[in-house]
Formats: sequence, C-alpha cells, structure tokens
Amino acid sequence: MQIAKSLQQIQSSYIREILEAASNPNVISLAGGLPNDATFPMDIIKPAMAKLGEELAIFQYGDTAGYGPLLDHLYTRYQLPANQKAMITTGSQQGLDLIARAYIDPQDCVVMEAPSYLGAMQVFGLCQANIVTVEQNKQGPDIEALEQCFISNAPKLFYSVPDFHNPTGVCWSLATRKAVAALCEKYSVTLVEDAPYRELRFSGETLPMASSFCPDHSIVLRSFSKIAAPGLRIGMVSGKESLIQPLIKVKQGADLHSSVPMQALLLELLNNDSFAQCLENNTALYRDRYNKMAEELEKHLPNGCELTQVEGGMFVWVKVPQCDTFALAKSLLAEGVAVVPSDVFYPPSAAKSSALRLNFTNCSPFDLDIAIQKIGQVLRTQC
Amino acid sequence: MQIAKSLQQIQSSYIREILEAASNPNVISLAGGLPNDATFPMDIIKPAMAKLGEELAIFQYGDTAGYGPLLDHLYTRYQLPANQKAMITTGSQQGLDLIARAYIDPQDCVVMEAPSYLGAMQVFGLCQANIVTVEQNKQGPDIEALEQCFISNAPKLFYSVPDFHNPTGVCWSLATRKAVAALCEKYSVTLVEDAPYRELRFSGETLPMASSFCPDHSIVLRSFSKIAAPGLRIGMVSGKESLIQPLIKVKQGADLHSSVPMQALLLELLNNDSFAQCLENNTALYRDRYNKMAEELEKHLPNGCELTQVEGGMFVWVKVPQCDTFALAKSLLAEGVAVVPSDVFYPPSAAKSSALRLNFTNCSPFDLDIAIQKIGQVLRTQC
Repeated sequence: MQIAKSLQQIQSSYIREILEAASNPNVISLAGGLPNDATFPMDIIKPAMAKLGEELAIFQYGDTAGYGPLLDHLYTRYQLPANQKAMITTGSQQGLDLIARAYIDPQDCVVMEAPSYLGAMQVFGLCQANIVTVEQNKQGPDIEALEQCFISNAPKLFYSVPDFHNPTGVCWSLATRKAVAALCEKYSVTLVEDAPYRELRFSGETLPMASSFCPDHSIVLRSFSKIAAPGLRIGMVSGKESLIQPLIKVKQGADLHSSVPMQALLLELLNNDSFAQCLENNTALYRDRYNKMAEELEKHLPNGCELTQVEGGMFVWVKVPQCDTFALAKSLLAEGVAVVPSDVFYPPSAAKSSALRLNFTNCSPFDLDIAIQKIGQVLRTQC
Repeated sequence: MQIAKSLQQIQSSYIREILEAASNPNVISLAGGLPNDATFPMDIIKPAMAKLGEELAIFQYGDTAGYGPLLDHLYTRYQLPANQKAMITTGSQQGLDLIARAYIDPQDCVVMEAPSYLGAMQVFGLCQANIVTVEQNKQGPDIEALEQCFISNAPKLFYSVPDFHNPTGVCWSLATRKAVAALCEKYSVTLVEDAPYRELRFSGETLPMASSFCPDHSIVLRSFSKIAAPGLRIGMVSGKESLIQPLIKVKQGADLHSSVPMQALLLELLNNDSFAQCLENNTALYRDRYNKMAEELEKHLPNGCELTQVEGGMFVWVKVPQCDTFALAKSLLAEGVAVVPSDVFYPPSAAKSSALRLNFTNCSPFDLDIAIQKIGQVLRTQC
C-alpha cells in the first residue's frame, strides 16, 4: 500500500539513528534530550500510585479536554485569563501535532527560528507547511527579519521556544518578547510558545512569557516531562477558547483523551507540598552538570569553537568552524561520543551554521569529563 | 486563525451532544459505549499500581513502538507471524488515526460497511478520504457488492469490525471472513480489522479473525479498553512489518510514545493468573445484561420494530419503521432515555436504515427496565 504523499517527504530521522547508536553502552551520549532520572519525584510518585490504584473512576473513559480536577489546578497554577481554555495532551508533542493538524493546510506558511526544534519541523512537514526560518541571535529572533518575514509571507503561525531554546539554549530577552508579541498582534500571526524548559532555570531571572504580551494571539504548550517525568506523556495546551476548540475536535479522533490515571498522578505531584523542593533539587543538579560541562569545554575546545552560555534548560550549542557536521558527529561516534550535528535542526533550504548540540542533564560528571576531552581532540584534528 | 480545510468538513459530533445530555443524572443512558466499571480488574490494578510506583525506569522516555516487555508478551499472546510487527498506541483510536494519516491522501477511497463506527468515519473524514460504503447483512458485508466496490473504486483500505460490529452487533460468519480476505488479496486492498469487542463473546463460538486469512494484506487494531480499562488508553496495531513502519514514523510526531507506566500496568494485568477469570466474569455480566435487555425489548417493542440478536459486544441495533431517527432520539431524551439514532452511523451520501443503537453494558437492570419501557411507549406513539 502506497504511503500518503505527506509522509513521503519526511526523511528518516537522523536523530533516531544517533539515539540508537547512543544506546550502545560503550557510547557516552550527549545526543538525546533525556531528563536525569534522579530528578523524578519517586518519593511522591510511589505513594500516589498506590493511592490511585484504588480510584475506580479514573480507569473509565474520560473527557477529551482532560481530567477536570487537573484542569482546575492548572487554570489556577498558570493563572489563565478568563477567556482562555486549557486542554491536556499526550505529551506536549501531541499539542504541537494537534495545532498543525487543526490549522495548517498544505503550503500554509509557518515561521520558526533557525535552528529549531526537530520535532516541530517534522510535525509541520507532515502537514506539508511551507516552513520559513528567521535567524536567531543571542536575544532571540532577529526582529527586523521577523517583521519582513511576516510581511512577505503572511504566515499563520510563529513557532517559538523563548525559554532555553532547543537546540541553542538561547533565552529571549524581555525586549524581544515584547517586540515579537507586538508583531504577532500587528500582523495577526499566532505565536505558538513552546515552554518545556521554562521551569528549568538555574541562574538569572524568570521573564514573563512572550505570549503574556499577546494573549489573544497565542497558544502555549507546556510539558510536564521535564519537571515531573516524561513516561507519563502529559502535556498541556492553552489559549483563547476559540483557538483551543478545534484542537479538542482533532484530539477526539486522535486518541479520544489522554490517560486518566497519569493525569491524576500529575495532579498528585503538583499538589504535593514537597514538589517545589523536588523542582529546586532538579535545577540544582542541572546547574552543577552545566557548570561542569562549561568548565570542561573551556579547557578543551580549540580556537575557533565557541560555547554559548545558558541560564537553564538541557542543552548547550557549541559553534565550530564551518564543516560537514554530519561527518564530525560520525567521527565523534567512532570515538564513543554521541552528539547531534547542527544540520538536523535546519530545514533543507535554510542557511546552516556549523555547531554541535550537547545535552548536559543525563550524563555523569565522570562521563562528561571523558566525552568533552574526546570532543576537544576530534575538533582539533578535524576543524 | 482560519482552521484547516480538512477540519472545516467535520461536523460537530451529534454523539457528543447526546453524551453530554446523557451525563444528566436524570437521564438513563443507553447511548455511550462505556464498559461497566464493575468489570475493571481493580484487585489486580491496586497492587500493580503500588508495585509500579517503585520502578524508576518506566517513568523515563520510552520507545515509540512500545514498552519492550509488553510487546514481547503480545507477540506471544496473539501468536503473531514472524514477519509481523506490533506497535502500542494511545488507545486503538490512535491506531486508526495513524493508519489514516500514514496511508490516506485526499480523495483516496476507503471502504466501510454501512452503518459503521463513527470514530472511523471522523478519522477518514479528517484525511479527506472518499468514503464508500457497502451494505451489511446478517453475515457481514454483502460480498458481491464488496467485490463490485473494489473493482469500481480501487480502494486502499477496507475498514471493518468483524466481531460484534459497532453499531449493529453483527458478527461475520466464517464464510464471510474467508471471502472478504480473498477479495482483499485479489484486489490488493488492505483489510483493517478493528477488534475491540472480539474478547467480549458471551455465546456461540469464537471464529478466526478475518485478517488471519490474508495476513499480508491486513492491519489489526486491538483495544484493551474493553477487557482491562479504557482510562489507560492503551491499544495495539499489528501487521506486516512494512505496513507498520510508516505508522511508527507518524506516531513519533504525534505523541512520541504512549504512557510507559500504563503499558507496564497492562502487562501486569495480562500476566496475572486471575486475569482470565476477570474476563470470564466480564462476559458473564454482559451476557446477563444483554439477556435482560433482549427480554424487555421482546415485551415492549411494538410491531414493525426488530431487535438483532447478538452473541457478544456492547450494543444491540433495534430496527424501527423508516422515520427521522434524530427526532425519535430527541423524543426519547425528553422522556429521560438517551440512545444513538442510526443516521449518525452513515456517511452523508449513504442510504440509511432507521434504527437505534442501544448499549447494554453500562446500565443497571433496574434502569434498563425503565428505559426499555419508555422506548416501547415512545415507539408506539411515534412510529
């Protein structure tokens, strides 16, 4: 049976190949985006699971929009405006997929920063969107280029990760957040603010969400994979009610609703007094790992390579002299270190900067040491 | 923001409206498709949840295809041929959605029996498929009409529910299963066999799956919502590896993977020695409820109405004299009884028979008594 045209355009995911290679126990992986399982709040999960095993009602079919008590909690927790609606999704990846399916026709324009999150490119690619990119600088997207892009392309959506961007780790400045929101309002572009790493800040000050400056022209995606545990597959999408209703319609056909016991488990976690402390421990651990990685990179990176400093999240972006980054990643893999080459984070047509994305959350300090030394060695010979 | 063209064609789901009305505590609902929560294996779930709360690894990201130990179990349980692959889905509804997204381009032809499962019509509608229907008789689809349809339309898929069809409860005869499989092989049509009710047989003999007669031209959807619990949202799709690989690719963008703790919970259930007994109790309960409903219908149905006998599943189909079945369902709702009118189970272009779908699994015998009496009264005055 011939596969659908939309799928014929999707190339086999290089990152999957790397992740497979990375599961080899002899490879040190800085490639994936796994939270450190030491951060999972097992002390809350264990009694919560036992308790939920007695709650008959959560094992029945649930509402498509989500488990009522969890939604109530989230409306309050995130102080959603009265005209906004929230829906629970099977991970925030599903929220993104539902947005694409509900709003994007083939050839509709979607704007992203370059580089950008691979999973978003896949989802918009599957809807045959026309993906247009805008360059990212240290403050976020280049605002002039973004306005020109909005004028030239009349996009439906601007997909963004303002807090600790994947892959670059960039955190948008306050001025950029306001400017992007103003442009979205001016040109009637919906800002999709994907915020999976927002709560993983380990230095500097939390900034208001970009969407808070254009609440009626935005959809927010929240993930609980990084602050609770990813295995649950629970995310959340919110925005003006008229923007969310079509997503509920698509979700009904997509999976009816997300697992109710997992929604109830998340509620138990969020309601637990010690959850805030778990989150602090989480960011403290990631701060240590980041500092360790930054320190080792300072020692071992040859001239011409540059680490972009970050204040949170899970990744750093190491700029390297212009080269074939796939070949570089393969050389590193041969030395037992898995990284993600920058090229995968750009759509085929975009201009690409050479860099490596390194994950610092899921690798022991000991392995980090070895991995960064090897990266230094390979970079010195190859670049 | 303008919604996608595919979604503009999806009408607001009448069944959702009915289900909402049915949640009024003064309404007796025979409308939904809820399993009876007395069948949920809570005696196994409770200790299993407590045990799983200690398993750190199941809270990390998992594989897109599914949790390895569960997949291993299912390969054995369902004795899948060596060239077949299985994937876990977020409910079998997701399996159906992934099939549509991976294989159906706008205007591709998909064949169904008429009447047919609403959720399947929605999913194929969202892919802008050309849905063509074939009439169903007491043995399953009309084989001559099906062959003519395959010849005229060269469909990609034939979507079917051979065991205790939703909405009619019809169970395909052995001859029909073989004949359909032969046609699928002859005309290179992929048989999608949706089997959510297969294990809910309370009389007669289990027949081989239709797909077992054309294993290389079929995809099977299995649900654990009816034999375990629907809140988990765990289903399964299987077929020849080359047919399943594209689904894995789409699932990666759709939700990365299904909840791992819920997959691990299902494995605990299936591995438990008392699970088989739970399933027996389940079908025994449904047999009693069905017998009760059939008995009451015999008493109260006026002439010109006809109950189709069933040997399992969750629904019966009551044929009524040709009428506006929406109006009939509304009159019943005004009397405090929710049912689903036959019209919703047909695509707009199909010839429609007048009937009501009644669910017998989730209503007490006391309420069943009252509901069927009222149905009898309303039918006597309206038909």
